Amino acid sequence: MRNLDEDTITQAVLARHAGMSDERLREIITSLVQHLHAFAREVKLTEEEWFAGIRFLTDTGHVTTDIRQEFILLSDTLGLSMLVTAQQNRKPPGCTESTVFGPFHVESSPEYPLGADISNGAKGEPCFVHGFVRGIDGRPVPNAKLEVWQADEDGFYDVQYAESDEHRARGTLYSGPNGEYYFRTIVANPYPIPHDGPVGRMLQALGRHPWRPAHLHFRIQADGYATLITHVFRNGDKYLDSDAVFGVRSTLIADWVLHEPGAAPDDTRMETPFYTLDFDFVLNPVQG
Amino acid sequence: MRNLDEDTITQAVLARHAGMSDERLREIITSLVQHLHAFAREVKLTEEEWFAGIRFLTDTGHVTTDIRQEFILLSDTLGLSMLVTAQQNRKPPGCTESTVFGPFHVESSPEYPLGADISNGAKGEPCFVHGFVRGIDGRPVPNAKLEVWQADEDGFYDVQYAESDEHRARGTLYSGPNGEYYFRTIVANPYPIPHDGPVGRMLQALGRHPWRPAHLHFRIQADGYATLITHVFRNGDKYLDSDAVFGVRSTLIADWVLHEPGAAPDDTRMETPFYTLDFDFVLNPVQG
Ligand SMILES: [Fe+2]
Ligand SMILES: [Fe+2]
Repeated sequence: MRNLDEDTITQAVLARHAGMSDERLREIITSLVQHLHAFAREVKLTEEEWFAGIRFLTDTGHVTTDIRQEFILLSDTLGLSMLVTAQQNRKPPGCTESTVFGPFHVESSPEYPLGADISNGAKGEPCFVHGFVRGIDGRPVPNAKLEVWQADEDGFYDVQYAESDEHRARGTLYSGPNGEYYFRTIVANPYPIPHDGPVGRMLQALGRHPWRPAHLHFRIQADGYATLITHVFRNGDKYLDSDAVFGVRSTLIADWVLHEPGAAPDDTRMETPFYTLDFDFVLNPVQG
Repeated sequence: MRNLDEDTITQAVLARHAGMSDERLREIITSLVQHLHAFAREVKLTEEEWFAGIRFLTDTGHVTTDIRQEFILLSDTLGLSMLVTAQQNRKPPGCTESTVFGPFHVESSPEYPLGADISNGAKGEPCFVHGFVRGIDGRPVPNAKLEVWQADEDGFYDVQYAESDEHRARGTLYSGPNGEYYFRTIVANPYPIPHDGPVGRMLQALGRHPWRPAHLHFRIQADGYATLITHVFRNGDKYLDSDAVFGVRSTLIADWVLHEPGAAPDDTRMETPFYTLDFDFVLNPVQG
C-alpha cells in the first residue's frame, strides 16, 4: 500500500474491499474496478484524455434534470441498456421480446376505456391499434394493464414540451375478457433522441446519427406473468438498421397499414387517410 | 442490426463506429464499450442495479460544481487517477515519482519570494520547508516554478471555504540560482476527502474511510524538464497504508521534524514549537 504503481494499483484497490459484508456489492465493485483499470491500461489513457472524460461526465450530469436523463441516453447509445434488458429478460421462444425502456415513460398515465383516442390532440395522422394479449400457452390474458406512449409527428413526447404538462399520445388501458385491446392514437414516426447535449456531441464525434426508427412503447403487466417492456417498430422505416439506441428486434417489427378515407375500425367514418396496426403480445408466466 | 440480443449487441455497437476517421477516438470507444459490456455480462447486472448506477452518476453530476469535483473524487477513490498518473509518468530510477493531482489545485496562485510565509493566516502549527530542485544528472535547476498547496489544521483547503476567496497555505515560488527553495507554511495534517456526497456514501457502503495521510502538494515546472506533479507525505501518519485515493509512494514519504521554541531556519525566534521539512526534487529531462 505504500508503493503503488500502474501494476499494483488494481490489486490494492480490490484489497481495500476485503472486509465488506455485502457480497453482491463486492462482486460488482470488483468487476467494475478490474474493467475500468483494464480499459485505462489497454488504451494507455493519457491524463488529458482522462480529464476530457471527467468533463464529459460533468456536462452529462449538469444537463440531466427530472425530464432529461442524459446518463440513460449515454447508456442507451453505448448499447448497455439493451444488453442489460436482454440478459434480464431471457424467455421461451414464442414470447414477445423485450427492448429498452427509454427515458420517456411516465408513471400513472391517464386511464382510457378500450377504443378511446389516447392522442389527446397530439399532432399526427390517425392510427387504430388492435391486438390480443395472450400467455405462451395461447390462453387470453384479460384485464392486462397496457401502458402506451409515443412521440408525435414532430418527434417529441408530451413530457418534452415545457409549455404544457398535459399527457398526449400516452395512456393506460386494460385488455378485455378475451385479452383483446384496441385504441386510437397517431401514427408512429422516427425521431432523433435529444442531441443538443454531451451525448449528441459524442454521437457526432463517433460519426453516428441520433435517429430512432418509428415505434410505439408498451409496458404490459398482468397477474401471473412477467412484466413486458417493449416497442412495436414500424416496418419500412429507414432507421431500422441503425437505431441510435440498438433497440430493434426483428420479431417486434410490424406493418402500419395505410387506408384511404372511409370506414374506420371503430365504425366512424374517416375523412382523411388513416393507419391500422395489428399486434399481439405473448406474455411469459412467472415461474413457481 | 435487426435482431440484437445479449450476445450480438457488443459487435453491433462497435460496427456502428467503423466509418469514423479519428483513429484514437475509435480505439478508446472500442475498448470502453467492450469493457463496459464485459462488466455488465460478468456480474449479470440487473435492471435495478443498472438504474442504481444511473442514479449514482446523476447525483455525482448534481453535486459537482466549480469548486467540488465529485467525478474526480470518484476516479481517485477507484484508483483510476493513480493508474493514469503512473502510466503516463514512467521515469528513470532516481527521479521524484509523481502522484495524483487531486481536485484542489488552483491556477495562478499568489507568487511569493523565497522564504515567505505562504500560510497567509491558515490555521496550523508553523513549518519551515526547504530543499533543492535538481536534474537526474545532479545539476541544480534554478528558476524552477514551484506551486505548493495544502489543507489547514481543520482539514480544509482555502477553496473549500465559501466565505472567503483569499488564498491560504497556497503559493507559487521560484527556486534560487543553486536550485534551492524554502518557505514557511503550516504543518500538514491528515484530512478526509469530501464525503457528504455520493462518493462518501459509496466509500461507506464499501466499508472504507475517507481519510488521506498528511501531505503537501507540489507542481514543479522548469525549462527542459517534464512537469512534476506530486506530494510529500508525512512519515508516521496512520493513514499511509490506507490512503483513500491510493496516492502514496514510499519514496515520497519524509519526516516533519518537531522543534522546541527557539531559533528558526529563517533566523527568527519562534515562541512556540515548530516543524521543519527537508525534501529535494529530482526532475526528468524532456526527451529530444
Ligand atoms: Fe421512444
Ligand atoms: Fe490533498
